[in-house]
Amino acid sequence: MRTVKAWAAPSATEPLSPTTIERRDLGEHDVLIEIAYAGICHSDIHTARSEWGEAPYPLVVGHEIAGTVAEVGSAVTSHAVGDRVGVGCLVNSCGECDACKAGNQQYCPQQIGTYAATDRDGTVTQGGYSTHVVVTEDFVLRIPDGLELDVAAPLLCAGITTWSPLRRWHVGEGTKVAVVGLGGLGHMGVQLAVALGAEVTVLSQSLKKQEDGLAFGAVDYRATSDEETFTDLRGKFDLILNTVSAKLPMKKYLSMLAPEGTVVNVGGPVEPFEVPAFSLIMGGKSLAGSNIGGIPETQEMLDFCAEKGIGAKIEVIPAEKVNEAWDRVVASDVRYRFVIDAATI
Amino acid sequence: MRTVKAWAAPSATEPLSPTTIERRDLGEHDVLIEIAYAGICHSDIHTARSEWGEAPYPLVVGHEIAGTVAEVGSAVTSHAVGDRVGVGCLVNSCGECDACKAGNQQYCPQQIGTYAATDRDGTVTQGGYSTHVVVTEDFVLRIPDGLELDVAAPLLCAGITTWSPLRRWHVGEGTKVAVVGLGGLGHMGVQLAVALGAEVTVLSQSLKKQEDGLAFGAVDYRATSDEETFTDLRGKFDLILNTVSAKLPMKKYLSMLAPEGTVVNVGGPVEPFEVPAFSLIMGGKSLAGSNIGGIPETQEMLDFCAEKGIGAKIEVIPAEKVNEAWDRVVASDVRYRFVIDAATI
Repeated sequence: MRTVKAWAAPSATEPLSPTTIERRDLGEHDVLIEIAYAGICHSDIHTARSEWGEAPYPLVVGHEIAGTVAEVGSAVTSHAVGDRVGVGCLVNSCGECDACKAGNQQYCPQQIGTYAATDRDGTVTQGGYSTHVVVTEDFVLRIPDGLELDVAAPLLCAGITTWSPLRRWHVGEGTKVAVVGLGGLGHMGVQLAVALGAEVTVLSQSLKKQEDGLAFGAVDYRATSDEETFTDLRGKFDLILNTVSAKLPMKKYLSMLAPEGTVVNVGGPVEPFEVPAFSLIMGGKSLAGSNIGGIPETQEMLDFCAEKGIGAKIEVIPAEKVNEAWDRVVASDVRYRFVIDAATI
Repeated sequence: MRTVKAWAAPSATEPLSPTTIERRDLGEHDVLIEIAYAGICHSDIHTARSEWGEAPYPLVVGHEIAGTVAEVGSAVTSHAVGDRVGVGCLVNSCGECDACKAGNQQYCPQQIGTYAATDRDGTVTQGGYSTHVVVTEDFVLRIPDGLELDVAAPLLCAGITTWSPLRRWHVGEGTKVAVVGLGGLGHMGVQLAVALGAEVTVLSQSLKKQEDGLAFGAVDYRATSDEETFTDLRGKFDLILNTVSAKLPMKKYLSMLAPEGTVVNVGGPVEPFEVPAFSLIMGGKSLAGSNIGGIPETQEMLDFCAEKGIGAKIEVIPAEKVNEAWDRVVASDVRYRFVIDAATI
């Protein structure tokens, strides 16, 4: 065991504070990562505040981890000391089910989340707001040269969460894509869809971030507070990627789909959507969901980002500003992702 | 113009009664069909009773038409006098939009329904509860030898409505399919999915029709009134084909899908479904709709049915029993489709 520094939530209601936690001794397939940066995802906040169910405390969150390999177990073949690597939302899975065999670890019933999950040794997993983490090699991603570690960190959640549906629904040259919401997820969705060749429209509550959206490569930017948006764009999109966690009026969004189009949700409001059957039937449309992505797909996304020069737009903060940053995330006051400099932890 | 016999709805509230209607003179691409059989679809009843919007009266419904070619226009090349043919839910479309070019006439914004629609000449289209109909050749399907006209008639709506989603979601050898509801649509869905090689389960309110379902080739038959059905079948199906027009508890149905599975609705309740985002997100699932199918796909389905010896299970009735048959359709008291013998019209 080694004792490492971290920032933890002592309870659902207290601010994060500095502490130390234990990381396990390296098993033969384990990799010790010296964390350089950890992105702040809204899920961190929901989980740490027990908004998605009672969390275990003290809890270290963070599942957008970038750093370098500091030590490897005796049987590790895929990573070497000094390699630039990342860890996302998962740190293990069964490896044997159909989903795992297909590289879709995100569907494995025995998947182990990067934090707040029960690990194989019975301990609670602790995330990336820390100086070091130990992860089994198959869940460690390579961060290609040419992708800075700070802008790479958010790709491990925000990047793969938007990449996976774009790939699954075959977004490419000429595809008409709308991205709902220009936040941490949305700004990645726009950049990735544009780089895949799609014609991208941003649908946002207001035109406040219009300049950014167009700079990310969108060809159109519309306010959903304007009813004309829905009539103007009727029947237009092959895919609408919904990144917001609000209960959208789904009938209106489905009406903007072309025949056989799909609205795919990566943001999850608590209240159910109301979906009229005929909004789906006429035009053969779909309302879908997507949850992060598998390990091979995550590597593919990182390689694609390096090739295309895509990264998250970030604001790097020292650990002591993390509580303030959380408040700003909740207030949607960030363009577009906070990243903690782990050297300050 | 020619005057032909038909059974029409004089208003939303009166029973159907015998009358005569006019059919247009043959244009150069038109085909005159002597109708042999017309299937009774629940949509006929909804439309004739103005339950889906105010219908034009008097109205002749029926969009499951089988018969023989009696006469062809001067430029018709695809059909000849004496050919066994069918007509489904559409009698025309623009022919020029992307959907039409792709053979998806069901998505054409200018599609013309077989009844209660405004035809190109400004008249209201009148359907198949009649002795004859005139249809442009591209919307006339060939009924292969070996498929009797009476069991073929319902394929033109119930057949294609279930065939199209089975094909779109790539149902084949080893696919696990559930069919919700064993009525006119459901009994076709089961037979078609089984013939495509799928492992089919019927989900019905009760076990009343279990023997029929298994005879159609289903390997399992479960009552949805039994809560254990949902826990037993959790995570099982690649595709759930929902043929009922009730507001299903969609969260429970989505829970029976395997990762990346789809619930596709062909039955349309008026009240919207309630769909929790996380029921879609976890497992990357979809809730979709499907509306009949295109002309090439309909021909493909007829050819497949002839090859596999599949037809609708029908009860042939004389025209004078049509009102009684409608009452029985509304009461779900038919196994599995009424077909009007047009010789009695």
